[in-house]
Amino acid sequence: MTNKRSALVLIDLQKESNFGLDDMDSIIENTKKIIPAFREADIPVIYTRQINRVDGAGLSKGEPLNEDGTPYFYNAASDQIEIFDEIQPLDSDIVIDKYRWSAFYETSLDLMLKSLNVEHLYIAGVVTDGCLMTSVFDAYFRDYQINLIHDMCGASNEGAHQAAMLTMTNWVYNMKIFSTDELMKKLNGEAHQYFQADQVDQMQFTADTMQAKFNEITNPTSSTTV
Amino acid sequence: MTNKRSALVLIDLQKESNFGLDDMDSIIENTKKIIPAFREADIPVIYTRQINRVDGAGLSKGEPLNEDGTPYFYNAASDQIEIFDEIQPLDSDIVIDKYRWSAFYETSLDLMLKSLNVEHLYIAGVVTDGCLMTSVFDAYFRDYQINLIHDMCGASNEGAHQAAMLTMTNWVYNMKIFSTDELMKKLNGEAHQYFQADQVDQMQFTADTMQAKFNEITNPTSSTTV
Amino acid sequence: MTNKRSALVLIDLQKESNFGLDDMDSIIENTKKIIPAFREADIPVIYTRQINRVDGAGLSKGEPLNEDGTPYFYNAASDQIEIFDEIQPLDSDIVIDKYRWSAFYETSLDLMLKSLNVEHLYIAGVVTDGCLMTSVFDAYFRDYQINLIHDMCGASNEGAHQAAMLTMTNWVYNMKIFSTDELMKKLNGEAHQYFQADQVDQMQFTADTMQAKFNEITNPTSSTTV
Amino acid sequence: MTNKRSALVLIDLQKESNFGLDDMDSIIENTKKIIPAFREADIPVIYTRQINRVDGAGLSKGEPLNEDGTPYFYNAASDQIEIFDEIQPLDSDIVIDKYRWSAFYETSLDLMLKSLNVEHLYIAGVVTDGCLMTSVFDAYFRDYQINLIHDMCGASNEGAHQAAMLTMTNWVYNMKIFSTDELMKKLNGEAHQYFQADQVDQMQFTADTMQAKFNEITNPTSSTTV
Repeated sequence: MTNKRSALVLIDLQKESNFGLDDMDSIIENTKKIIPAFREADIPVIYTRQINRVDGAGLSKGEPLNEDGTPYFYNAASDQIEIFDEIQPLDSDIVIDKYRWSAFYETSLDLMLKSLNVEHLYIAGVVTDGCLMTSVFDAYFRDYQINLIHDMCGASNEGAHQAAMLTMTNWVYNMKIFSTDELMKKLNGEAHQYFQADQVDQMQFTADTMQAKFNEITNPTSSTTV
Repeated sequence: MTNKRSALVLIDLQKESNFGLDDMDSIIENTKKIIPAFREADIPVIYTRQINRVDGAGLSKGEPLNEDGTPYFYNAASDQIEIFDEIQPLDSDIVIDKYRWSAFYETSLDLMLKSLNVEHLYIAGVVTDGCLMTSVFDAYFRDYQINLIHDMCGASNEGAHQAAMLTMTNWVYNMKIFSTDELMKKLNGEAHQYFQADQVDQMQFTADTMQAKFNEITNPTSSTTV
Repeated sequence: MTNKRSALVLIDLQKESNFGLDDMDSIIENTKKIIPAFREADIPVIYTRQINRVDGAGLSKGEPLNEDGTPYFYNAASDQIEIFDEIQPLDSDIVIDKYRWSAFYETSLDLMLKSLNVEHLYIAGVVTDGCLMTSVFDAYFRDYQINLIHDMCGASNEGAHQAAMLTMTNWVYNMKIFSTDELMKKLNGEAHQYFQADQVDQMQFTADTMQAKFNEITNPTSSTTV
Repeated sequence: MTNKRSALVLIDLQKESNFGLDDMDSIIENTKKIIPAFREADIPVIYTRQINRVDGAGLSKGEPLNEDGTPYFYNAASDQIEIFDEIQPLDSDIVIDKYRWSAFYETSLDLMLKSLNVEHLYIAGVVTDGCLMTSVFDAYFRDYQINLIHDMCGASNEGAHQAAMLTMTNWVYNMKIFSTDELMKKLNGEAHQYFQADQVDQMQFTADTMQAKFNEITNPTSSTTV
């Protein structure tokens, strides 16, 4: 794999994000496995962290507060805002603190990516239907080609996770969807599989077909290439 | 109703957007009904239009092209980019052309809203899971209080529409969801109903419960106020 | 000259901008001369226009108003907002309307430049110390290499023009300063001269030295290369 | 004085900024004097810091490098990036790190100011013609009313300082210019003086008149109000 023009972006893999998300253990396990492969390939690793100031400056509208007026979630004074121990950033990594769901909103992420000549974004994290999805759309608007690692993403509920994955597939053109294992193969220069839609808004679904459509994008078989 | 600090934003209600979306006729009908009520209340009406330049400058990555290299969708040279005849903007309305899904991305929408002292955004349009949803999230990041008019929104498929509505309900704090009829009552100063989540990430769902959860937010009964 | 990755950006060369600016006739004359050379080299030509809506939506704070509340300057209803007749844009050119001094503030300029793979910006227009200078700084922040065409820029007063040129020279690293004639040579593949500072904040000045320092950057001799 | 809707923003008052700037001692002294008055009035105090990562990620184009490839200026690993000891921020203050001259470019400054309901920005720092001026223009574009504290600003050279002050006076409508002493009076609810231009582009100048024009704005007499 050429490591040129790529970066790995990990959205909000913070201790506090483990508020009952599905599959958090395997998300951490997969992330722990893939990070060394990116480092080996000399591809920058970037972490984001959701932060709310103790004094409430910069809070999103309607953000829940404690009785003393401090933010209920992602309080900057809590050690729960730190990245999970198993996947701690190195000093040389880039860590972007953010105050809104999207990792691009009033942060230096885009200027960092541009200075690193990044075209291809490998991205994952939580929650699929919130910070991850809004970051993916914002990356797409800025002309990055997106590569989603689906089993390193998670939500509090199966429906939101599946629907967000389908929605991104439909409206983020040129997006590729990898599993951790298949991406490991790619990073190792081996044959691998990923899903990419053939056409715009391809993954239309109803409640009845959502699971099957989701399976299509996460278990590519005939529709993928090596 | 106080008309202070409000605006109506209509996302991409362009002739070309009628590419087989569900319920487009009733979306137009509802929009046609509600616009005069906003004008009556002296609330600004803002339209957005998706545009792709004929020469391809500014195109999103992966945007489909015709054989001659011109954009397949929303070609600026086509009269299909115009707003539907039934709901044509007045000269005094604001029309924002945009090149990405979100109506805020590199457009003057935010500076317009700020100069109009807008805090409360009434928003609707198509597609629910694309331009509408990304615009709603971007508005939320900029501290607007969002009011979604659910039966003036539409998608190409039922699942995407329902899931996007639930996702916005979960992650856009303080968002209210109206039907056209209930919003008409509000604009007329009458008792009315809307849905607003009581807590963060409230509308968790699976394929089995998506329809029922969607019904909860679009048919508020006991959970709403007057 | 390679035409790859370049664009010409002309700031606010609108009829109304001729409010007594120094040297406007020669600015237009020079612009008229250089545009065909850029077209010949297949380099995109982009115009910006300052616009104020008749109803005042989006006005800058403190913008002067007429007695009837309409904007005093750059009123969208006036034909004075059009580009000078001598240098009218073609249909195929990009014209960016803007509501703030900087051509990048809430406009599509950056996404246009990125989609055209522009790295090198050739830029000029009016006023040197306002829209031109703020656009240059914003371009620099976005990692474009700037090339200023000094005799296609102008201000209402000599001091502001000279000081703004020196300020940009000091703080826009890697900026080159051309005269129209020297840039014509470059576009024609001939030997040519330009000024580029050797070090950061090089052009320090006082009232006594401002004219001489300005002469240095606009009349490169020994300090320039071919 | 009403403290509502105001903030004090101090641009790059970092140890490294003392690279031979004029009057740095008095800038620090004035800043040290005014900060307690803002705190007393319960007005937020915000500091910005220019930062260059050791590994060069996010560097501006053309930023000077050491032989080992690390940034020559504002290296994040140096304690020279800290705020001057005499005016150290409190834990409760907001400190914004930035990678470009403007304090608004890809930082959280604007969302902080908005959440604090700020309309009136009191701003000062270094260098007048670089980070200070580009931050002031960016604040103006975002509809803040600007109040410049001229003797808490400085540049490496007299001409750049004077010209930048005049340029901001000309193009940042509604801007007021205070001295530290007069602003202290205002914060104490006493009669005070400031300069504000009566009309657009009022302070036109040549090399011969620059000093006199500068004196007009920094020594308001008849032209100011109480």
